[in-house]
Amino acid sequence: MATAEKLYFPSHQRKLLDPYLPDPHGPFPEDRPWITLTYASSLDSKVSAGPGKQTVLSGPASKAMTHYLRTKHDGILVGSGTAITDNPGLNSRLSDAIDAPNALALQPRPIILDRRARWIPQDSKVVDLSRGGRGKPVMVFTGLPAEDPSNLCEHADHGGDGFDYCPYVDFLKMLVALKSNGINSIMIEGGATIINSILSDYAHLIDSVVVTYAPVYLGDQGVGVCPTRPLPKFEKATWLPMEDDVVMCAVPKR
Amino acid sequence: MATAEKLYFPSHQRKLLDPYLPDPHGPFPEDRPWITLTYASSLDSKVSAGPGKQTVLSGPASKAMTHYLRTKHDGILVGSGTAITDNPGLNSRLSDAIDAPNALALQPRPIILDRRARWIPQDSKVVDLSRGGRGKPVMVFTGLPAEDPSNLCEHADHGGDGFDYCPYVDFLKMLVALKSNGINSIMIEGGATIINSILSDYAHLIDSVVVTYAPVYLGDQGVGVCPTRPLPKFEKATWLPMEDDVVMCAVPKR
Repeated sequence: MATAEKLYFPSHQRKLLDPYLPDPHGPFPEDRPWITLTYASSLDSKVSAGPGKQTVLSGPASKAMTHYLRTKHDGILVGSGTAITDNPGLNSRLSDAIDAPNALALQPRPIILDRRARWIPQDSKVVDLSRGGRGKPVMVFTGLPAEDPSNLCEHADHGGDGFDYCPYVDFLKMLVALKSNGINSIMIEGGATIINSILSDYAHLIDSVVVTYAPVYLGDQGVGVCPTRPLPKFEKATWLPMEDDVVMCAVPKR
Repeated sequence: MATAEKLYFPSHQRKLLDPYLPDPHGPFPEDRPWITLTYASSLDSKVSAGPGKQTVLSGPASKAMTHYLRTKHDGILVGSGTAITDNPGLNSRLSDAIDAPNALALQPRPIILDRRARWIPQDSKVVDLSRGGRGKPVMVFTGLPAEDPSNLCEHADHGGDGFDYCPYVDFLKMLVALKSNGINSIMIEGGATIINSILSDYAHLIDSVVVTYAPVYLGDQGVGVCPTRPLPKFEKATWLPMEDDVVMCAVPKR
C-alpha cells in the first residue's frame, strides 16, 4: 500500500474553526456525543454527481481541513451508502495525527450506520487501516440481528477484526451507545440520506455545522442536501475561504 | 414614498469584485451584451421559500454589493415571475448612483423577460421609479404580439410611460435587441427559471457569475437553482465573506 499523503492545516485557520468544534477538555453533552454535521457540497447543494457515484468536491485545502476536524472528534459517522461507494479510510492523515507518539489515540473511531446490513468488511479500507494499526476499529450499527445483539457494543471490544457489530435500534439509542463507549464527540460526514435526516429530524441535537462549498455545479442528476420542514436555523455563521472552496461554520439557533 | 435608503459598498471589496465585472471602457462582446449571472441562494441552493414567495436572503453587506453590481452594468434582467412576486425597483441605491450629478445615467436599464405577458405595469415599483426620474424606463420583452411588434424596441423610445414593450422571439434575438439599444452589459438577477435556463442552455454566453450564499436552509418546498447537463464549468473562483453571507465570483471555463 502506498504511503499515505500527509496533510497540513495552518494554525491561523485552526483558530478560526476551533470555536465551532468540541473543546477536547469538555464539557460535553451528558447523554450523547457532541455532534458536528459536516459535508462537502457543490454550488447547487449536491454531495454527489448521482446515486452511488463517488464524487470528490473538496480541494487540497478544505480536504486538509476535514482531516483536522477528524482529529478533533472521538468518532466519524457515515452511512453505509457512503461506506460502500467511497470506501473511505475514515482516519486522519493530518500531520499531527501521523507524527504524534500516540498516533492511534488521536485517530477518530470510525462509525458506520448500516441499518440494512449492506456494508461488508472485506476489502474495506477502514478495516485495513485498523488491522494495520493506522486507524481504530469500526463500530457498525446495524438494524439486523447479530449473534446476540443485546450484548454487542455495550462494551465493544474494538477488537482484532477491525470492526464490531452493534445493534441499531434508533438514532437516539445509537448516540447513547456511543457515549457509553466513551465517544464524547462525533462528526457526521454523510452521505445525503443521513445529512438530510439529521437536518430534518434531529436538528436539535446538532452542536455545529461545517459545510464546504466547491465552485462546481453537479446538476439535477446529483444527490443533494435539502432538509424538510420545520427547517433548522443556524447563527454565528463564519465563511472561511480555502483556495477554490469556502467553508461555512455555524451553530444552531437554540 | 419613503426616502430610499442609501447603500455603501467599501472600496476594498470593489477591488476584489471588479475583475469579474465588465470593464466600463470595454471591450464588450460584439453581438450581444456582456452577461453577469447573479443570484442569492440559501445553503441548499434555493432562491425562494416557495413558488411566488418573496424571499429575502442577502444581508445588508451583500445587498449593498448587489446595488454596486447594478451600477456596473447597463441593464438588469429579471423574469416576469420575479417582477410580479418581488415587485423590485431594479435601480441602484448605491451612494455613488444617488449622489452623482448624472445620477440617472448611472442607473441600469430594467429589463423584464415576460414571454407570456403576465407582468402589468400598474403599481409596479420599477415603473414608478422611472416616472419619478429615479430609474430608467423598463424594456419588457414579451412573446405575445403587441400593437406593432416589428417596430418595437428597434429604437425603443424609453419613453414617458416608464416602460416599452419589445417582441420576444428567443433569448439570442433579445440579446441582439439589447445590444442594438446600446446595452453593452447586463446582469441577470433571477428568478430560478431564468437562472436554470441560462446555466443549462446558454452557459456559453455567460461572462461571469456572482452568487451570494446566506447561511439559511430553505428546504424542499423552496425553488432552487440546479442546472441540467451538460453542466456549466467555472474557474478562477473567489469567495468574499460579507458579514453573514459569502459571495462567490467565477468565470466560465472556455
